[in-house]
Amino acid sequence: MDVDIGNALASVASPGVSREGLERLDERVAVAHERIERGMENREHGYEALNLPNRTEPDEIRTAVEPVAGPDTETLLTIGIGGSALGAATITNALADEGDTEAIYLDNVDPEWVSSHLEGASLEHTAINVVSRSGTTAETLANFLVVRDAFESAGVDWTERTIVTTGESGPLRDLSDRHDLPALTVPDGVPGRFSALSAVGMVAAAVCGHDPEALLEGAAAEADSLSGSLFECPAYAYGATSYALDARGAGTNAMIPYAESLETYAEWFAQLWAESLGKDELGQTPVRALGVTDQHSQLQLYRAGPRDKLVTFVKPRTGPDRPIPETDVDDLAYLGDSTLGELLEAEFEATEASLAAAGRPNVRVELECVDEYELGGLLYGMEAACVLAGELYGVETFTQPAVEWAKKATRGLLGGGEFDEADAVTEKTELRVER
Amino acid sequence: MDVDIGNALASVASPGVSREGLERLDERVAVAHERIERGMENREHGYEALNLPNRTEPDEIRTAVEPVAGPDTETLLTIGIGGSALGAATITNALADEGDTEAIYLDNVDPEWVSSHLEGASLEHTAINVVSRSGTTAETLANFLVVRDAFESAGVDWTERTIVTTGESGPLRDLSDRHDLPALTVPDGVPGRFSALSAVGMVAAAVCGHDPEALLEGAAAEADSLSGSLFECPAYAYGATSYALDARGAGTNAMIPYAESLETYAEWFAQLWAESLGKDELGQTPVRALGVTDQHSQLQLYRAGPRDKLVTFVKPRTGPDRPIPETDVDDLAYLGDSTLGELLEAEFEATEASLAAAGRPNVRVELECVDEYELGGLLYGMEAACVLAGELYGVETFTQPAVEWAKKATRGLLGGGEFDEADAVTEKTELRVER
Repeated sequence: MDVDIGNALASVASPGVSREGLERLDERVAVAHERIERGMENREHGYEALNLPNRTEPDEIRTAVEPVAGPDTETLLTIGIGGSALGAATITNALADEGDTEAIYLDNVDPEWVSSHLEGASLEHTAINVVSRSGTTAETLANFLVVRDAFESAGVDWTERTIVTTGESGPLRDLSDRHDLPALTVPDGVPGRFSALSAVGMVAAAVCGHDPEALLEGAAAEADSLSGSLFECPAYAYGATSYALDARGAGTNAMIPYAESLETYAEWFAQLWAESLGKDELGQTPVRALGVTDQHSQLQLYRAGPRDKLVTFVKPRTGPDRPIPETDVDDLAYLGDSTLGELLEAEFEATEASLAAAGRPNVRVELECVDEYELGGLLYGMEAACVLAGELYGVETFTQPAVEWAKKATRGLLGGGEFDEADAVTEKTELRVER
Repeated sequence: MDVDIGNALASVASPGVSREGLERLDERVAVAHERIERGMENREHGYEALNLPNRTEPDEIRTAVEPVAGPDTETLLTIGIGGSALGAATITNALADEGDTEAIYLDNVDPEWVSSHLEGASLEHTAINVVSRSGTTAETLANFLVVRDAFESAGVDWTERTIVTTGESGPLRDLSDRHDLPALTVPDGVPGRFSALSAVGMVAAAVCGHDPEALLEGAAAEADSLSGSLFECPAYAYGATSYALDARGAGTNAMIPYAESLETYAEWFAQLWAESLGKDELGQTPVRALGVTDQHSQLQLYRAGPRDKLVTFVKPRTGPDRPIPETDVDDLAYLGDSTLGELLEAEFEATEASLAAAGRPNVRVELECVDEYELGGLLYGMEAACVLAGELYGVETFTQPAVEWAKKATRGLLGGGEFDEADAVTEKTELRVER
């Protein structure tokens, strides 16, 4: 990925970072980069994620998926939540125009919605991809039990059509051993939200006909660009600028891809940013948006609301196009000379410039196009940006302690053990207003 | 809708509003309510939207859609953007389990994505619903020209399968006159983001087999509950609490429905809130999320990040359910005694309590279920909440001046006239970092 931070400079925007401010920050980037390199070399928890482009073995993944890969599998049902779903979904949704296998993600336990994916489904042409490091994630295991039962009711042998990605031990590992299922390992030291470039993201990619090698090559090229200066490394330029803008008042980071295919990428980014940096009362709030659609929804706020936002555009330079047919309606004739792609490009440039004209900071992240190679670079680049930002904030980038409370309370409420958290649920303060 | 603001009280959360603070604010609510009532009576711009439950004529809509309503129409292709799409999409996506007609929204001009909706589509079983008040919205008209051309290429008479919703005059009105198309009117005085309960939202609802009368009845019941006190009116309780929390530091409002069917509702809310209140450097930033999915993505930030967020839950009290099959795996046995609905409920209660336990403000909006009547109430209630908040902020709730700059620049870039804004685009400040 290439990054243009010109519109985040203090000469353009408020809040903005001065050129001198960036140069001072670059000294801290050099120190942080040394810490990151050391973490990678020592394969420390979290930092190990940045080694994935060179450690993930595509052959192992291709072998594991071989029983269900191919045109006979019309649907790949991935059962996972959070980091066990979003990386894979980012890849398969970005590349959905290729391949014949549709990817569906069961990442919620809404009963009506789960049922809608099973009723009328052609299960003999469906493969199951179940992903949970612990093998105990309540939502994932509940959905897996439901799906397995649906296969049994339909007389389809689920053991012939299931791939497991999990940790070295746990209920899912036991299950895959018992039924001799193809099983891949969530690598040690790689938190879920940093696992897109491991088996966690690659199984879905491979089953859906995408090229794991090209994804990893793109990521590796981004890894090669890591260096001790934000002025020489796009990933660090992005991470450092986001941090600098947050420190200057831009507590919100609105991520706006200008490609429908990258809509899920914005969700993936939102998890990466929120769960990694949102601690100790620090961390930018990620907001997911989509160009051009959200120009008609969020732009008013971004341009004229509080000066607390950094807007990040992700823009492929090239892509398929489609001409706009000519029309005899005077007021619309100008459209007929152009294409949808030109309209999209003009809207992007206009929106970027309209924010700059109002002194609102924004950053442009450019991809050559949306393919495996560029996508691998984008995912790796944003992960490295996030790790750098974590170093600058001084937070524990690779943990997520604040989600444990609700997990225990849920388990207690469902009778899965005694937890004080469950008792606290019943003590809610009410002030009800009913009609 | 019912509202519980107990977890937004200062006794629970920080930021939070004290009971005394709410009582003082209630004096301003009484004054604002008088202003709103006067605006409704005089049918003033914007306030007129709150009259829609009693002014929209379902019979007129049923007559207009009659040529394309029914099982022969497999797909309804709505071409619109922003307020011309989100209200309709909220309704048809919330109720998608009913009816046989699938609703698709062309609310972006991404060429690959637009083509994906036309290639292989069975156009003789597709109806077109084109929506633009001005009849000149670039994205909508470009897509309409593309879709019309695709129908002509396929030898399908688009004039037999198109419904137009537009203003009293303009290119779309001329077109509907020339081809004698069924045409409905975007009512005067109703901004797009407040138009869900007019023809703008009701055409899609009616074509897809939902009940416009029940939507309007639910909205009318909510309208009847408007009163001069936030303690007696759920809509005002929500609007006033959001305003009070923003004034106390919660500049972000995370909207989290606990139902997949309400995912689009969160997008609709985000437009309503952002475009209405985001001006004069004021306005809460809406963030769209989804329960339980985003517990594994955003909860860490909401519970342990900056104290700048109000979390709003929307929770149906009842809905379809599905048992979780029993399992012999010890660590998962507790799941087998319950249902997906119970798991969803426990996760919701646990998440709500986990935020309260960390002193993070949150509000619960309850619906009885997700049906036309309850949905009409929710849409109307949030619109009234937004209008009240606008009065409290003192902003021009019903305009969106900041989006004009980019529209002019886009038009200029495409050769649709001379605009200074287009020249500004070329003057971008660059600071590029490439790998």
